[in-house]
Amino acid sequence: MSKFFSSKYASLVPYTPGEQPRDMQYIKLNTNESPFPPSPKAMAAAAEAAKGLQLYSDPTAQKLNEAMAAKYGVSTDEIIMTNGSDEVLNFAFMAFCDETHPAVFADITYGFYSVFADINRIPSTVIPLREDFTLSIDDYIAAKGTVFIANPNAPTGLLLPLSEIERLLQSDPSRMVIIDEAYIDFGGKSCVPLIHKYDNLLVTGTFSKSRSMAGARLGFGVANKELIRDLNTIKYSTNPYNVNSMTMASGIGCLSDEDYTRENCEKIISARAYTMQALREMGFTVTDSRANFVFARHPAIAGEELYLKLRQKGILVRHFTSPKIADYNRITIGTMEQMQVFVQTVKEILK
Amino acid sequence: MSKFFSSKYASLVPYTPGEQPRDMQYIKLNTNESPFPPSPKAMAAAAEAAKGLQLYSDPTAQKLNEAMAAKYGVSTDEIIMTNGSDEVLNFAFMAFCDETHPAVFADITYGFYSVFADINRIPSTVIPLREDFTLSIDDYIAAKGTVFIANPNAPTGLLLPLSEIERLLQSDPSRMVIIDEAYIDFGGKSCVPLIHKYDNLLVTGTFSKSRSMAGARLGFGVANKELIRDLNTIKYSTNPYNVNSMTMASGIGCLSDEDYTRENCEKIISARAYTMQALREMGFTVTDSRANFVFARHPAIAGEELYLKLRQKGILVRHFTSPKIADYNRITIGTMEQMQVFVQTVKEILK
Repeated sequence: MSKFFSSKYASLVPYTPGEQPRDMQYIKLNTNESPFPPSPKAMAAAAEAAKGLQLYSDPTAQKLNEAMAAKYGVSTDEIIMTNGSDEVLNFAFMAFCDETHPAVFADITYGFYSVFADINRIPSTVIPLREDFTLSIDDYIAAKGTVFIANPNAPTGLLLPLSEIERLLQSDPSRMVIIDEAYIDFGGKSCVPLIHKYDNLLVTGTFSKSRSMAGARLGFGVANKELIRDLNTIKYSTNPYNVNSMTMASGIGCLSDEDYTRENCEKIISARAYTMQALREMGFTVTDSRANFVFARHPAIAGEELYLKLRQKGILVRHFTSPKIADYNRITIGTMEQMQVFVQTVKEILK
Repeated sequence: MSKFFSSKYASLVPYTPGEQPRDMQYIKLNTNESPFPPSPKAMAAAAEAAKGLQLYSDPTAQKLNEAMAAKYGVSTDEIIMTNGSDEVLNFAFMAFCDETHPAVFADITYGFYSVFADINRIPSTVIPLREDFTLSIDDYIAAKGTVFIANPNAPTGLLLPLSEIERLLQSDPSRMVIIDEAYIDFGGKSCVPLIHKYDNLLVTGTFSKSRSMAGARLGFGVANKELIRDLNTIKYSTNPYNVNSMTMASGIGCLSDEDYTRENCEKIISARAYTMQALREMGFTVTDSRANFVFARHPAIAGEELYLKLRQKGILVRHFTSPKIADYNRITIGTMEQMQVFVQTVKEILK
């Protein structure tokens, strides 16, 4: 920290992204990326947009909003497109939390929520998951403040049914609820349709996982138009041209190729089923993940040890040091071939 | 504003980007874009990067930093790459301003500075330009706080010599100074080399103007490594993957084609000289701009009237309603052919 850094951030601990080592080629199962390339339509649209980079991107993202509206069954003023879903989440912490509206989230969830709260100097209420990693909606109904829930949750992969989310939304209409659906396309049911029923709901999503566009940085929020207007007030006060024109074009290209996205999701779901079964047969405890990763521990090997041994053998998974989950590893689901190599490698390590 | 929007932002007035009307094709001289397409090397690199979008972009921007370091004569840890220069400016307001370090900037300058101060709830000291639109460094030496100066300034185009900036840096080594060099490549001398002499200097820049990449959203900050580390603390607490991989690749492509950038800048400088002379011959007062725009008023026609008449005739320029500059228009320099049409059109309007 330089002597010029504002003391208000003196205790800020930034988010740590998953490692991206360069010492060798790894099978990369550590950052929940898709193993499949983006849609050829996304690539072609990006290349075309690159020819016109001298002009600013459209701050209203009009054409992309139209494609999103058609896909999600909402109107264009119920959508905001952002530079990854981290941006819309940060905007939500800014817009809907403050001293009197603390941020409420789980102890084991997306690690960035606590950082967003800290950098915005927002108090937070951290609610422990139950022993089995399930999230009890009653705990959130009892808490005061703006609720952030990842559904499915990360790194557990556990999915809440919509009825539970509705129970939270109904329990206090003056409370904002943000549902982070980064992983919804791998078997969950989106609560986007609920935005027309509840004016206190913001749903966030990303093109980084099921749509193979992590490197493009494209996220979004869906909510009633008053909430979207609030988020746009934040956007136009920080970075009006937040999404570049190549990313916008590739998003439109991607949305015009839904078959490709669906087929990829089906492949991931199959490879996940294979991986979960193989791990359980080896004696692992595996959560019932509905995301593009699994979360597993083995009674005979510590989480960190397995992570390090896999790393030595050229496979990267994600290990978290937080005591409650230190026994576990989060393993991104790659192609079936990658998961077969993974399973074989784990077998060798356990021998 | 919804009932959920935090009261802390109740009085926030977002930045207004230049208009992007769709009712007809305009000669677009209103948002300081380049009239030239990006380097073919930038386009090709972006198209190549689009094929690998399924992987996250490199949060450290290592390869782009290496290309930047070679170009600017600094080391890679003295650079931060951002989602447009708006992002690095916002980070600087966050990192280097607070209750006890107000933001200090001119009354007539980039309109976003006051918005950045407001959204970060930072007090600001606004210093009027002199009658002739020049900026007196002594006014800033006398003020307390973190100084933001656009050099050349917008919308006046006036350039401060490095000696004046050095005088400010030397006057109080405990004061942070941010020099926003968005328009430096059109005839100004960059103060980037001064970062090795002064640890209280941050220089910001953009690929949006001279490098024809406004739609790619690529900005940067250059400073000693401690200040860069502070800015990275902010980045990793808001959006670690802030620059997408297509933009990074196109930035590297662009930097490998410096002849193209230089030739385009020379064309702009020639077209600017032509435009300034033609406007002066018609009786306009024109500031001595060193940017890719000119700032002009005519005794016989109000600024807004000229703006509207040009708009009717298919030419967009930027008019600001602030009383001190309401007589003026800011006219982006396009190609020589576009400026000839502009001059001819102004002649017709004045007839």
